[in-house]
Amino acid sequence: MRALSSRINRLAPVSRNPERTRERIFKAAFREFADEGFAGARVDRIARRAGINKRMLYHYFGDKEALFREVLRRKMAQRLSWTAATPDDPSKSLPYWFELACKDMEWIRLLEWEALHFIDRRLIDEERRRTAVAGAVGRIRARQKMGHLSTAFTAKQTLLAMTALTWFPLAFPQLTRLIMGLSVSGERFQAGQKEFLRKFAAAFEAAGTNHHLRFSARGNGQTKLKSQ
Amino acid sequence: MRALSSRINRLAPVSRNPERTRERIFKAAFREFADEGFAGARVDRIARRAGINKRMLYHYFGDKEALFREVLRRKMAQRLSWTAATPDDPSKSLPYWFELACKDMEWIRLLEWEALHFIDRRLIDEERRRTAVAGAVGRIRARQKMGHLSTAFTAKQTLLAMTALTWFPLAFPQLTRLIMGLSVSGERFQAGQKEFLRKFAAAFEAAGTNHHLRFSARGNGQTKLKSQ
Repeated sequence: MRALSSRINRLAPVSRNPERTRERIFKAAFREFADEGFAGARVDRIARRAGINKRMLYHYFGDKEALFREVLRRKMAQRLSWTAATPDDPSKSLPYWFELACKDMEWIRLLEWEALHFIDRRLIDEERRRTAVAGAVGRIRARQKMGHLSTAFTAKQTLLAMTALTWFPLAFPQLTRLIMGLSVSGERFQAGQKEFLRKFAAAFEAAGTNHHLRFSARGNGQTKLKSQ
Repeated sequence: MRALSSRINRLAPVSRNPERTRERIFKAAFREFADEGFAGARVDRIARRAGINKRMLYHYFGDKEALFREVLRRKMAQRLSWTAATPDDPSKSLPYWFELACKDMEWIRLLEWEALHFIDRRLIDEERRRTAVAGAVGRIRARQKMGHLSTAFTAKQTLLAMTALTWFPLAFPQLTRLIMGLSVSGERFQAGQKEFLRKFAAAFEAAGTNHHLRFSARGNGQTKLKSQ
């Protein structure tokens, strides 16, 4: 079935539906960049994965860097719509971010490749990414003003620490396995880590919040009633 | 000066001082593995960096995997002596771990390469590493018993979260730069992050500890007097 549909892809008149072709190239490119990094990615392998010829790929996207920009642009748009749905309360937002990260491990891999090849150089598409990050910082600042997040730390520090806590275990699956004795892809690790993040979120809560009261409320099973 | 000493290295009768030769190979190998990862590292480049011939390197260490094991073994021994000096109080241990990580970014890079090539496979030297991690978990458990660390989280969760907070910004220097607007190698970022970790450490403190009191004591400059 798989082989058949991929054969059909290869035979399909790609120019008839440019949007679908672009989508197919995007998916193949994202997979290739996540597997091999920008430096290791090969345009001919992306073309093969997308089931089109290399010339056609250049026609749609230009060179490898232009393709990488497009992958970043689409990924950031997708992630923006996800993060816009972030709950205000950190005991919900941290588990939510972790859940998103579990579904998007290839994105973390892609950034990890970039980290290894990055030597204080300008990033590909740096301006646009700087703007996206500034938006995320702004949303945290707004939550601080509304009293959902502590102002003991700057919005930037809060974003960096929240990203660290939710991404690190997935970025270093071998360390997580050594420490926790569990695979990061497994249900047992993911459920446990979500529960950990829900509790640990108290560290980011505004000073007025009474942690002890809330913890005990959760302890006796009243959480759902109280939060609805 | 540099060129001269490296020329002397290359001309030195390597077999006369086997310990120094091994040390030189170890340093060159560590640098090469951090730069290129295990898969990308080349034994002939390591030999060139160490200023000896490839045959001699094989004589001392065997193959690339044996050399990698030796790099891990030495690095873990070194890190063990560093972490043995970890202060009990998390407001001191988190900044301390971060300081160590800043001095040891190549170690983080090396693990990052491993993370990218790791696909649920058995790790090189997994047994020994599992033992080292179990030791770190045991030391956290002991601090929990002594009342220095909260028991709201398991020792394993605590180790994973502490590692995440202290390593993540260095593992993803490009994200840190996008978020904080500062280079991870710069004094400004490192001093700010140490201060953040000192404050954030309250999240790991045992429940009995009165954070508000301690924060205000620090706020009026009494910290040093109180902690000595």
